[in-house]
Amino acid sequence: MKLNCDMGESYGNWTIGLDSEVMPWIDMANIACGFHASDPDVMANTIQLAKQHQVEIGAHPGYNDKQGFGRRSIPHSFDQIKNLVAYQIGAMQSMCALQQCQLEYVKPHGALYNDMMDSLEVFEAIVEAVALTMDDPKLMLLATSDAQPYQSIAQQHQVELIFEAFADRAYTAQGKLVPRTQEGAVLHDSSAIIQQVVSLATFGSIRAIDGSVLALEVDTICVHGDNAESVQSVKAIKAAIS
Amino acid sequence: MKLNCDMGESYGNWTIGLDSEVMPWIDMANIACGFHASDPDVMANTIQLAKQHQVEIGAHPGYNDKQGFGRRSIPHSFDQIKNLVAYQIGAMQSMCALQQCQLEYVKPHGALYNDMMDSLEVFEAIVEAVALTMDDPKLMLLATSDAQPYQSIAQQHQVELIFEAFADRAYTAQGKLVPRTQEGAVLHDSSAIIQQVVSLATFGSIRAIDGSVLALEVDTICVHGDNAESVQSVKAIKAAIS
Amino acid sequence: MKLNCDMGESYGNWTIGLDSEVMPWIDMANIACGFHASDPDVMANTIQLAKQHQVEIGAHPGYNDKQGFGRRSIPHSFDQIKNLVAYQIGAMQSMCALQQCQLEYVKPHGALYNDMMDSLEVFEAIVEAVALTMDDPKLMLLATSDAQPYQSIAQQHQVELIFEAFADRAYTAQGKLVPRTQEGAVLHDSSAIIQQVVSLATFGSIRAIDGSVLALEVDTICVHGDNAESVQSVKAIKAAIS
Amino acid sequence: MKLNCDMGESYGNWTIGLDSEVMPWIDMANIACGFHASDPDVMANTIQLAKQHQVEIGAHPGYNDKQGFGRRSIPHSFDQIKNLVAYQIGAMQSMCALQQCQLEYVKPHGALYNDMMDSLEVFEAIVEAVALTMDDPKLMLLATSDAQPYQSIAQQHQVELIFEAFADRAYTAQGKLVPRTQEGAVLHDSSAIIQQVVSLATFGSIRAIDGSVLALEVDTICVHGDNAESVQSVKAIKAAIS
Repeated sequence: MKLNCDMGESYGNWTIGLDSEVMPWIDMANIACGFHASDPDVMANTIQLAKQHQVEIGAHPGYNDKQGFGRRSIPHSFDQIKNLVAYQIGAMQSMCALQQCQLEYVKPHGALYNDMMDSLEVFEAIVEAVALTMDDPKLMLLATSDAQPYQSIAQQHQVELIFEAFADRAYTAQGKLVPRTQEGAVLHDSSAIIQQVVSLATFGSIRAIDGSVLALEVDTICVHGDNAESVQSVKAIKAAIS
Repeated sequence: MKLNCDMGESYGNWTIGLDSEVMPWIDMANIACGFHASDPDVMANTIQLAKQHQVEIGAHPGYNDKQGFGRRSIPHSFDQIKNLVAYQIGAMQSMCALQQCQLEYVKPHGALYNDMMDSLEVFEAIVEAVALTMDDPKLMLLATSDAQPYQSIAQQHQVELIFEAFADRAYTAQGKLVPRTQEGAVLHDSSAIIQQVVSLATFGSIRAIDGSVLALEVDTICVHGDNAESVQSVKAIKAAIS
Repeated sequence: MKLNCDMGESYGNWTIGLDSEVMPWIDMANIACGFHASDPDVMANTIQLAKQHQVEIGAHPGYNDKQGFGRRSIPHSFDQIKNLVAYQIGAMQSMCALQQCQLEYVKPHGALYNDMMDSLEVFEAIVEAVALTMDDPKLMLLATSDAQPYQSIAQQHQVELIFEAFADRAYTAQGKLVPRTQEGAVLHDSSAIIQQVVSLATFGSIRAIDGSVLALEVDTICVHGDNAESVQSVKAIKAAIS
Repeated sequence: MKLNCDMGESYGNWTIGLDSEVMPWIDMANIACGFHASDPDVMANTIQLAKQHQVEIGAHPGYNDKQGFGRRSIPHSFDQIKNLVAYQIGAMQSMCALQQCQLEYVKPHGALYNDMMDSLEVFEAIVEAVALTMDDPKLMLLATSDAQPYQSIAQQHQVELIFEAFADRAYTAQGKLVPRTQEGAVLHDSSAIIQQVVSLATFGSIRAIDGSVLALEVDTICVHGDNAESVQSVKAIKAAIS
């Protein structure tokens, strides 16, 4: 079970995230591409750090909205989504080429990620961008109980899907994330977080928020490196599944 | 003798240049990459137009300055130049991949172009970016009387150079562009423009502003598609050298 | 009956709209404030032009989205709308002060305008920004059959409302604009446009798209200066109501 | 002797500076205006914090360059500087009006500040912007041995000058800051910093880097709130001069 983490979301003089502290403990780095965060210099530094720790490099494209950190959904047509994502993938590939390494996969960010999960049209636009711009196209998305519609589109375009679960988010019995507005949506207790990850890694299932058993096929766990506490949590998760 | 032209410099709702009118008459399109002008959608449209007319696609990277249209020199370190250019090359490559076509060469824009010609350090940073990010790296620059320093750096990095001259700019006896602030810097008379191009194509030389003969090895002529008059000029140039 | 027109929507090197041709024929210029379009230099030039022709200056604030020209709705909280609008009003006031003239009113742009008409919460946030930042606060909005909810909020904050109608848009019997996606939404025939304006100016009513009579209390007509045809239309409207 | 500090340089989701920790100890807050840093929401929060602690509010305009944090000099004409600064002053005035407080003064940021000190033309453009947009115009600049050229321009436009010195920067015998590239340019020893401030407050003079006595008329000391150490230093300075 691999750990993935959003990285390289600093910008110019502004720093966010404890990238150098969390990089040694993760397997996949979702690196911002200069639209919702980052710039060419931050990308170069983050790729270098990932390379040092032999972490797989993923492109983390988002809406072009630094002020909103890519967390606001901005209306886009199908072609605009495709162009938006292709542009950022290419930029990241090239920044990897500068350091003789490879882009391995794509994971959309923030509102673009949510829009992808909510709309198969947005999903397909992203799949097309990934398919046409990568030699070995892989796209990360949220593991849900019914992955079939996503699988069907991805197979048409020969894109491999990587399913992720969140270590610290509660799930509904239907296999969706409990909305953040609802109580219990975010797991704060570190033993609960580790139990969820271990359960996914061992049994391919977790307890939904209503107590029922929820089967989830998961390739990777999304963790966070925002602050000292979350880095601590990543280390504990890594230890639990190693 | 190929004709190259800056293209795809519109942005969002703003249109600049008569791209669709000039595209049929040129051989190489220097397409803006979203930093000094353009966005992913404008790039997609411009690539499609170039493809229709079998025009070679070049990346036209600039400083990240839309308000200044890339015409203001902004201080960058060596690595920052390299990152700036690599990012834009990759973005353009990926936008080409969306339409199953190829990026052929790179020509820096505006102040970045001028800085490249004025500073071998800036030139080398750009050469490195081109070398590391393109399979068949080619960089366009200004033909001057002494290309040796540029050639030497380009050869070290196995980058092919493409030399351009301006159809409508006067040259000093030393093979530099007459500064725009000086009288006679820009040729407005269409017969003078055509004579300069034909002279370059036929003899590899032109008359400098002081009347002396100036030898210039030139691969391509830079033309403009800003307005109806300049499109007319491009057609006349094309007819004269065909 | 005053004519108002969106102006100053150029940006850096990009020009849009025939501002200098339409300015002599209008009474109120809605001038972009640097968020969806424009920059401090374009603002200065547009204010100067308005001053020359003794046209009232309005601030035309929009979402911070140049690529989308302010036409995409971007999620904002109540306070964020207030801050967004206040910032742009102040910037415009100061640009007016540079030329010893006055900002007279505010008219939101594009998606912000639509969001204001669709949501009383957005409307109130804008009203608060206008009330707190202007000595003699005035806000322009769309004339509808039921202006009471807007009037009520505006009066609480002592903001004067200016109601506008569109010269070239069809209205439903309920007093809303016919959506652009529907046939007949935009009037193209110049005699139909002039008839609509004259009818509003003379009778305070127009024919709705279903043929019924629609009463609309209107202070100003919104016209466009996008191209030669629309400038021609503005001149004809001006002549018809003078 | 007042203490002034750059504040409100966060942006969207990115935080920089310990604003809430340093605000209680300073007298004047130079608040970023959305060009080199900040956005309308960050401005609103920073103004609120300043108001709570009865700190004077200054506008801190910079070049329009978030990626470079306003530290890169970008070529501007005289009028462009004037427009750039006026725009930001107005935006800040309006954000103050939202909270019923007043903008007191202007202090340019980063490269714009340096350009102002290096060029009387840039200085005059800023003075004009301040004069035309503020009721009681005040501009902060660097105290130097020869303030006469600045005073002369400021008096013509009836702008009051506020002279600042840096607590932690060494000065040349000629009254200029020792360039950061030179050894000893920045004072790191807290007792040296405090001694410099106390000497300025008590005697109106300091020791230049060559040991000579340098007279400097100073109204305010610039301090920093970047990190815990600098906040500690501000507290010590405040205690020393109270």
